Amino acid sequence: MSDQHEPPAQAPVEDSLKQVKDLLARHRLVEGLVHKQNMPRHELVESLVHKQNLVELQKKLDKLHPADVAYILEALPLEDRLLVWNLVKADRDGDILLEVSDAVRESLIATMNIHELVAAAASLDTDEIADLAPDLPKDVVQELLKSLDHAKRVQVESSLSYDEDSVGGLMDYDFVTIRADVTLEVALRYLRRLGELPSHSDKLFVVDRNERLIGTLPLKRMLVHDPDVHVAAIMSDDPVKFSPSDPATDAAQAFERYDLVTAPVVDARGNLVGRLTVDVVLDFIRAEAEEDMLQAAGLREEEDLFSTVWKAAKNRWLWLAINLCTALFASRVVGAFEGSIEKLAALAALMPIVAGMGGNSGSQTLTLMVRGLALGLISKENTKRLLIKELGIAVLNGVMWGSMMGLITWLLYDNIGLALVMAAAMLMSLIVAALAGFVAPIIIVRLGHDPAFGAHVLLTFITDSMGFLIFLGLATLVLL
Amino acid sequence: MSDQHEPPAQAPVEDSLKQVKDLLARHRLVEGLVHKQNMPRHELVESLVHKQNLVELQKKLDKLHPADVAYILEALPLEDRLLVWNLVKADRDGDILLEVSDAVRESLIATMNIHELVAAAASLDTDEIADLAPDLPKDVVQELLKSLDHAKRVQVESSLSYDEDSVGGLMDYDFVTIRADVTLEVALRYLRRLGELPSHSDKLFVVDRNERLIGTLPLKRMLVHDPDVHVAAIMSDDPVKFSPSDPATDAAQAFERYDLVTAPVVDARGNLVGRLTVDVVLDFIRAEAEEDMLQAAGLREEEDLFSTVWKAAKNRWLWLAINLCTALFASRVVGAFEGSIEKLAALAALMPIVAGMGGNSGSQTLTLMVRGLALGLISKENTKRLLIKELGIAVLNGVMWGSMMGLITWLLYDNIGLALVMAAAMLMSLIVAALAGFVAPIIIVRLGHDPAFGAHVLLTFITDSMGFLIFLGLATLVLL
Repeated sequence: MSDQHEPPAQAPVEDSLKQVKDLLARHRLVEGLVHKQNMPRHELVESLVHKQNLVELQKKLDKLHPADVAYILEALPLEDRLLVWNLVKADRDGDILLEVSDAVRESLIATMNIHELVAAAASLDTDEIADLAPDLPKDVVQELLKSLDHAKRVQVESSLSYDEDSVGGLMDYDFVTIRADVTLEVALRYLRRLGELPSHSDKLFVVDRNERLIGTLPLKRMLVHDPDVHVAAIMSDDPVKFSPSDPATDAAQAFERYDLVTAPVVDARGNLVGRLTVDVVLDFIRAEAEEDMLQAAGLREEEDLFSTVWKAAKNRWLWLAINLCTALFASRVVGAFEGSIEKLAALAALMPIVAGMGGNSGSQTLTLMVRGLALGLISKENTKRLLIKELGIAVLNGVMWGSMMGLITWLLYDNIGLALVMAAAMLMSLIVAALAGFVAPIIIVRLGHDPAFGAHVLLTFITDSMGFLIFLGLATLVLL
Repeated sequence: MSDQHEPPAQAPVEDSLKQVKDLLARHRLVEGLVHKQNMPRHELVESLVHKQNLVELQKKLDKLHPADVAYILEALPLEDRLLVWNLVKADRDGDILLEVSDAVRESLIATMNIHELVAAAASLDTDEIADLAPDLPKDVVQELLKSLDHAKRVQVESSLSYDEDSVGGLMDYDFVTIRADVTLEVALRYLRRLGELPSHSDKLFVVDRNERLIGTLPLKRMLVHDPDVHVAAIMSDDPVKFSPSDPATDAAQAFERYDLVTAPVVDARGNLVGRLTVDVVLDFIRAEAEEDMLQAAGLREEEDLFSTVWKAAKNRWLWLAINLCTALFASRVVGAFEGSIEKLAALAALMPIVAGMGGNSGSQTLTLMVRGLALGLISKENTKRLLIKELGIAVLNGVMWGSMMGLITWLLYDNIGLALVMAAAMLMSLIVAALAGFVAPIIIVRLGHDPAFGAHVLLTFITDSMGFLIFLGLATLVLL
């Protein structure tokens, strides 16, 4: 629905945010004054200045694209956010709820009653209703489904039946079909009767009498060919198409690779069931990248910048708990060598370097493996070759950085034995780190997860424990 | 140019890769047999079976979309890659070079002579030539510019003058303009005379007689309106438009926010100078996400999976060197407390936990700050509020995890003083970590960098050194 509001490009959204904040500040100022002078509440509501600011704010909001309103809601603390939310015209609620992040959506939905929610969702397309449904209370969803006609209800239910990260979960039902045996003139007359084409339409879908997809007809071809040409003569008869059960990541790669704007989705019998558009794919790619970034820091879900301390802390605990466990394990490895450390306290100062360098070089191997696995560039035949390469780099780095740290250790402690232990431990722990960085994502994929899932925690666990073990063990054996 | 090859969706690219690998394996097998039997080289070339495999491989490659050939080249070790590259038809070299990663592009360009390179680049659009030019030898670029006509040369030179990460660096020159005072019928006749529209065209750009942009006309509106309507009546007169100097990230956000397919680029006087398309924006977004991921692990550039050990190692050194320095600094902090550690070796075992938990919780704060800064959600007014929130979380976490580690320490070492020191050190270092995670990206932005640039290294430096200092310092003061 989003192309119904022309986005006002001349005023970037940051400027709009600033204007909204200014209006809010003026509103607060008036409210503060009134409060100080102990004006009764109803006079405050009547206060002309006060009203003026809110009216101006509302006008400003009405002119904004739903995505811009969403951006402003994200950037405002809870109190201001709800004030702005209440000023937004009800018929735009649905579009805006679709655009905000999960965390902010939750804060907005919490303030709405069942009637408002049903009305907001009912204004959306069926695929958008399905996107919103998981965040709505169950009774709202039931009420909503009841309010839809049969065809739409079937579409919502089918969208809900697909995984969020599948093509079925991303597709919409907004497409125009046409027969192959008509002329462009007939097709154009049909389109004029329709009066409007769905957003992002760059092609019509050509189907036979059984609704089986047999080709696509790019709109631009319709414009440059003579009206008496037949659709069959200028359609593409082998278009890129997807199945509803295809993973969304595969579809995203195809959109990137083949520069698609829209693509048909067909069922097992080849019947047209939906349409995928580049804007949804773009949102998916961005959301995936964000999720990876948040996951890498152990944030379980997107955090509302202005959520409460308690809620934010809970979001972060699981990861901290896991890390505490791995750190405790590494600590016990060190604990096993307390006798050695008592005799030679320099070991305690040097051991973090061995573990740290292992962690850093291991994470380089890990990152390249995760990327290669995600892109499908790593296969059985080339794993051996890649492992040899990574081990080669580890040996090269181990010799180089090990020698350097050996030298530094010798200069610092004037103990040639300690220097040699340092050098050898660096070499060994870089080799272990390369192995760990190489194997960890492969194991994680075998277990059926995304290669990046938990890979860094696992790597740090190995490089810390093994780094301490190698360095302190070697020192105990050789020096003490 | 990419929409000239219909991508064969029915056979996913992974299948094509497998088929190519099979053909290569068969080719190698024959070559191996011939080699074993000491056949002279010219007989080998004549060998029918051998030839057949290569012919079949070439046929297979000719049928593939340039992006699919690029994917296959990425997945093959250098030797096989160059064999495949030589089989690809010369007129597709340019398109394929555009699709491969920088590292692989370098390996392919290294095998081509100046004439091949000029011919490959000359087959591209002017904006694509500009994309390729930075990777080409200087004499090739000069030769290439000489071979272009004046208008095209000006376009290439203007593209080259813009920053790679600006709208000017991403825009193309493939657009169709039209006047506002003509009817759709006239416009349609004009388009039919043109015979073809540029890829991704979803709208025409409406200009006045001075080439000033005054609106856009979506193709789908042309299809649904009567031929006697005037362009002015149905055009959008306030379209989203960009300036060549706008940062590409801003344009990417606008494409996402407003679900654009193409957008005009205008100069300061409002004259149309170029066009931005969603496929280029998509590639940009993906490339940015990849770069962030690689940068986070200190990989300076994309690595060819099959590059030499030496080349790959050099790519990774800078980061390891920086990390060695920060680790050395942290090690000297520990070194200052060697006396305390000799007396109480348990300190050495416990200190990595304090530093590690600080690093982990600090990186959670950091990640949210980096995201908020990148999206422009963090402003002067709300920094204080956010800082208070992050400090609140740090105190909550510090009390919780600190008490837990205090208890564990007491159980492990039966030393109540040590347990209290542990708890207090955890609390303090989590507060320091939150401060560091909060301030580091702000400082980096002030210095004019991307907020993620080096932020994690800086954070680890602070949390490690301060974690050790707080824990060992407190222990020395209280216990010894």
